[in-house]
Amino acid sequence: MFVTSNQREPQEGRRRRSDGERSRRAILDAAARMATVEGIDGLSIGHLAQTIGMSKSGLYAHFGSKEELQLATMDIAEEVFDADVIDPAMRAADGLPRVEALAEGFLSHVERGVFPGGCFFASVAAELDTRPGPVRDRVAAFQAGWTELVASALRAAEREGALGPDVNIEQLTFEINAMLGHANAVFLLSGNGDVFGLARRAVRARLERAASG
Amino acid sequence: MFVTSNQREPQEGRRRRSDGERSRRAILDAAARMATVEGIDGLSIGHLAQTIGMSKSGLYAHFGSKEELQLATMDIAEEVFDADVIDPAMRAADGLPRVEALAEGFLSHVERGVFPGGCFFASVAAELDTRPGPVRDRVAAFQAGWTELVASALRAAEREGALGPDVNIEQLTFEINAMLGHANAVFLLSGNGDVFGLARRAVRARLERAASG
Repeated sequence: MFVTSNQREPQEGRRRRSDGERSRRAILDAAARMATVEGIDGLSIGHLAQTIGMSKSGLYAHFGSKEELQLATMDIAEEVFDADVIDPAMRAADGLPRVEALAEGFLSHVERGVFPGGCFFASVAAELDTRPGPVRDRVAAFQAGWTELVASALRAAEREGALGPDVNIEQLTFEINAMLGHANAVFLLSGNGDVFGLARRAVRARLERAASG
Repeated sequence: MFVTSNQREPQEGRRRRSDGERSRRAILDAAARMATVEGIDGLSIGHLAQTIGMSKSGLYAHFGSKEELQLATMDIAEEVFDADVIDPAMRAADGLPRVEALAEGFLSHVERGVFPGGCFFASVAAELDTRPGPVRDRVAAFQAGWTELVASALRAAEREGALGPDVNIEQLTFEINAMLGHANAVFLLSGNGDVFGLARRAVRARLERAASG
């Protein structure tokens, strides 16, 4: 948070804070897009400064270190993902409609190219999965949160009798997420948009099977 | 290939060639392991030299450039994967037994930690998917080859009447590969070995359903 150091010039302080916040957001939007292509570890202050045409010292005024920049970038990426995928799905009824909305929201998010490197968190997860630290922990927490969202909506479906008696929630969650993650991965490597249709059919068929028995 | 420059000392030449080949292989084994953790783009000559305790000039004698090192590393990674996963599966009968052997071979390959960062090609694919060049093309070709192996065994199963009439080979291939890729991704991020059981059950159930209907 920006705190003005000059209490005698409130107008000037307000203008500066507002500029600072606008520019911080612009920097982080660029950083999040860049991280899905170059990797979040390629997100050095120097490289980002060059990309957005800003001085390194200007960037250091916003972020004291590379790790601080990485964590702030993940905040923004999570905000974007929440607004684009999670929030709309949470407005769907709990149970199977919400599972379908989460799956469709994710596939559409990747298909529309909100980030140039597909799902931000899948991209960063693949990069950092074997490299311990606070940035990796943050990705793991995000993915655990997503998995719990899907599982929770499936448990709601189970409680209201919308799933067959032999359905294993952990197994079903794994399979749905597998379709979503694979669509993202194959699309990025092949550029073939057919994978979204394959993933949609797979999720629909799997949920129909779970509903019937 | 090492060619001795001194034809008058065949013994010496043989010894040097043998040393050269042994050391090239040792370098590439280390490089392949390192690439699954640090990324294949992190595979600089300087960094690798430091890791294996060799001089940069010694490494440059083997590989003229970073890209040459990266491509040679992929050759070795593919050799390892072929020997560990593909070759045993090709000894299984064509059709469903081969599909099962490919899936089990892949899951076991990741579970045993043959590479510290899981599947070499999934790791490099996630890193380079949006970055054009010969290294990325090589990964895309590898993954297309794997997909065709699975699809080809499924088509053999179809020809011998082992699949139901409504089975779509492209759809089924996508779903099986989704389970395999997701097990790899979740295991690397969470360290939870339960995902292999989930993936095995998913593949088995999916193939049983394809066989019956």
